[in-house]
Amino acid sequence: MYKERIKRTGLESRIRTAEEAASLFRDKMVVASSGFTKAGDSKAVLKALATRAAAHPLQITLITGASLGHGTDGLLTTAHVLHKRMPFQVDPVLRHGINTGEVLFMDQHLGESAEIINEKIIPAVDIAIIEALQINEDGSIVPTTSVGNSPAFIAAASKIIVEINLSVPLSLLGVHDIFSTGSWPDKKIIPITNAGTRIGTNAIAVDPEKIVAIVLTETTDSPAQINERDDKTRAIAGHLLQFFEQEIKKGRLLPSLRPLQSGIGKVANAVMEGFMDGNFHDLTMYSEVIQDSAFHLIDAGKLNLASASSITVSQDCYNRVFSDFDRYKPHIVLRPQDISNAAEVIRRLGVISINTAIECDIYGNVNSTHIGGTHMMNGIGGSNDFARNAYLSVFVSPSSSKGGAISHIVPMASHIDNTEHDVDIFVTENGIADLRGLAPRERAKLIINNCAHASYRDELNDYFTEACKAGGQTPHLLQEALSWHARFKENGTMLRTIPV
Amino acid sequence: MYKERIKRTGLESRIRTAEEAASLFRDKMVVASSGFTKAGDSKAVLKALATRAAAHPLQITLITGASLGHGTDGLLTTAHVLHKRMPFQVDPVLRHGINTGEVLFMDQHLGESAEIINEKIIPAVDIAIIEALQINEDGSIVPTTSVGNSPAFIAAASKIIVEINLSVPLSLLGVHDIFSTGSWPDKKIIPITNAGTRIGTNAIAVDPEKIVAIVLTETTDSPAQINERDDKTRAIAGHLLQFFEQEIKKGRLLPSLRPLQSGIGKVANAVMEGFMDGNFHDLTMYSEVIQDSAFHLIDAGKLNLASASSITVSQDCYNRVFSDFDRYKPHIVLRPQDISNAAEVIRRLGVISINTAIECDIYGNVNSTHIGGTHMMNGIGGSNDFARNAYLSVFVSPSSSKGGAISHIVPMASHIDNTEHDVDIFVTENGIADLRGLAPRERAKLIINNCAHASYRDELNDYFTEACKAGGQTPHLLQEALSWHARFKENGTMLRTIPV
Repeated sequence: MYKERIKRTGLESRIRTAEEAASLFRDKMVVASSGFTKAGDSKAVLKALATRAAAHPLQITLITGASLGHGTDGLLTTAHVLHKRMPFQVDPVLRHGINTGEVLFMDQHLGESAEIINEKIIPAVDIAIIEALQINEDGSIVPTTSVGNSPAFIAAASKIIVEINLSVPLSLLGVHDIFSTGSWPDKKIIPITNAGTRIGTNAIAVDPEKIVAIVLTETTDSPAQINERDDKTRAIAGHLLQFFEQEIKKGRLLPSLRPLQSGIGKVANAVMEGFMDGNFHDLTMYSEVIQDSAFHLIDAGKLNLASASSITVSQDCYNRVFSDFDRYKPHIVLRPQDISNAAEVIRRLGVISINTAIECDIYGNVNSTHIGGTHMMNGIGGSNDFARNAYLSVFVSPSSSKGGAISHIVPMASHIDNTEHDVDIFVTENGIADLRGLAPRERAKLIINNCAHASYRDELNDYFTEACKAGGQTPHLLQEALSWHARFKENGTMLRTIPV
Repeated sequence: MYKERIKRTGLESRIRTAEEAASLFRDKMVVASSGFTKAGDSKAVLKALATRAAAHPLQITLITGASLGHGTDGLLTTAHVLHKRMPFQVDPVLRHGINTGEVLFMDQHLGESAEIINEKIIPAVDIAIIEALQINEDGSIVPTTSVGNSPAFIAAASKIIVEINLSVPLSLLGVHDIFSTGSWPDKKIIPITNAGTRIGTNAIAVDPEKIVAIVLTETTDSPAQINERDDKTRAIAGHLLQFFEQEIKKGRLLPSLRPLQSGIGKVANAVMEGFMDGNFHDLTMYSEVIQDSAFHLIDAGKLNLASASSITVSQDCYNRVFSDFDRYKPHIVLRPQDISNAAEVIRRLGVISINTAIECDIYGNVNSTHIGGTHMMNGIGGSNDFARNAYLSVFVSPSSSKGGAISHIVPMASHIDNTEHDVDIFVTENGIADLRGLAPRERAKLIINNCAHASYRDELNDYFTEACKAGGQTPHLLQEALSWHARFKENGTMLRTIPV
């Protein structure tokens, strides 16, 4: 079966076991791997490397598209293989390693993460591991369920290990659109003028001599977690959908809206599912990841086109979509992440971006990454690629969590990834704050009164009132600004009075 | 003399005094005015409006390109004319009005500031005031020393007042390049592929029926303040120029570097002047403002092309350049600010951006706007338009000021406009921190040890060490993080021990 997937003459002789491939790695190497939101990642070689490290200790810099699946980052962390990791992760074991300081983590805008390789800011990539659907006659590599940074990795790497994943159906052929802007000073325009514009090729060009090993795998992607809609997520989605309907009435939007970007997470997913119910049609997505909700919308005839860098879905959805992919292919484009997340295209298309906040302060500054201002959750991902250049930048969050112990609206954000300038709309289950055209003092009133949880609203208003007495464009009481976080650390709740 | 500047038949009859034009304004109007970094602003009508307001009180929303000159914002503030002001200002009287809360200020990315008008997010523009060099036969308006948001203002306004400034030489004809991307869903590509690419017209199209008054003026732009290089700015420039030379040696840059953007301020200007001395040549600028240093570099044959939205120079430079503008014109392009500051072009051209920070924290988050975290200085301006999309984002600042009482490197920035993700290089007179490819804990060591002032270095290191013990990707002690600012407010110095 693998023979039809290695069309380049002579390459078959480079088939190796994962263990053999793993023996190619040396201490201090810079390693790049495919994988974006757990899709299209290395299933065999990185795991084998973790195993091998027990006997042959080594430390590498590992760069990916975005997150890996299958607990691979955790295995590598436990085996002390990771010296530095970039640009994103979602693994609890790696997260712990990052927060103890054992693993250096560079948290990057996903759309910019190929640049430090392309511009030779970091040492050259020694080995790239690329999951592939097939290798073409000319040696070019067809990716699987994600494109990510693979074109940049393949161009930069001295050696390439290809993992051909036999479980991914060949019907994916043709879904990818590989385009490179090239190098300065002749960087090309990205000529995408609607979400579905195809501008590139179906495979990534490669010098076949660089392919040092081919490993066969049959493991499917880690499935996305299914997050059922609950009352809170339903309410958040409801507020946002109502807002879109009002914008249509005001003549600012059409029922097709503008190309949608939706982050990962149950709230963002609930919003997308919400489009099933409203009077929206001919929707498009220009996003970084295609999730279950997109396929539901395609099935319902609501979504015409979804462009992204990866497909990350639940097991059920995976089975349904990939057993009948020819049906979905006309609606899907998979792009490199510097194209899916390109400032140029996002601004041109007027994307509506919807991302999840960890916390938002009363002026609309959003923390997307750091728990308590210090501990990394996942990373900034593409949130600011989209929020910074979107026509409409929406952030969503429940107003509180942990039984009310944490308010997600705080006086001052303990870490800021998306500044007030890049946050147009904030939504919680309580309501929506449309911050466009408003000065900070106007923003504060809306955020507190429309979005905050009732248990925290009075104290936020008190803070704001007192801060205004001290004056300023963005009034704050610096000695109290971060006290809610300190209080949580001390008392286990941000509430002023601990409930008995 | 004015006749040759009103080429459209019939428009001469609309010449009015500034006072007559000022009588057209009504309470609650949305008013837009040309003006960008004090260049090409309204010289007569806004002043007359401030005067008229004493007898006829009114409050308006005033939108400009960027800052106005001639103390106009101060006069309007004193006359209580400003209800809301956007997107930028540099006026001490207005600044006070903003910080007391009298004037609502919306601090915007300059490159995005036309969007809330184009997309009808705020109420329609009632009157636009546009300084012009001349009105063409077809009614189109040629701007003067800045383009700013004038094309958007002219397109959106119900009524237009043109101030024809007879002091600006007609030799400016042809320096402007007016281009609009148009509206969604047919927004056009911005086809600029080098700093000098001309893609538009020399004048702004207008429906001549909208021109309700023409006012003649002869006042030149407010001159830029001359900031002589001192030891600190010279040292900062020196570190940065040495860095560029090393990058050339490493093969990452050519002696022509990449298109330069330089913010306003004595440090940024000193860096630009520094290019006179080094082995750099065939430089280009893709910036928002062209300052004295650019003309010095053009005179020296070092700078081939400067593209921006305005020319803001000292009186000496003004006299020299505008008395002989035909000599400089081939080297200059003036663009609308949504083109000069376009994410799309800045990324494509690989701009090197150099901006001034108010403060930077140990992880590289930059405060560009707020004194003490609360009080507005000027505004974010174009700093994040450039820093977010630049090939290389440089921020500069002295390590300390006020005789050492203020450290510009602090544990945590009291306000964040440019996040760690968008700050590649930080420079003070003490040295340079190249933060590319580094995790926060690595960044902190470089910033503290290379950039901080000696008087604060130990305490910063102590803070960082203690914070690391508490763990995290971005270690902080939240209860101490902002204590330096509180200390300054209390003791007048950030120093732990007050010197006797």
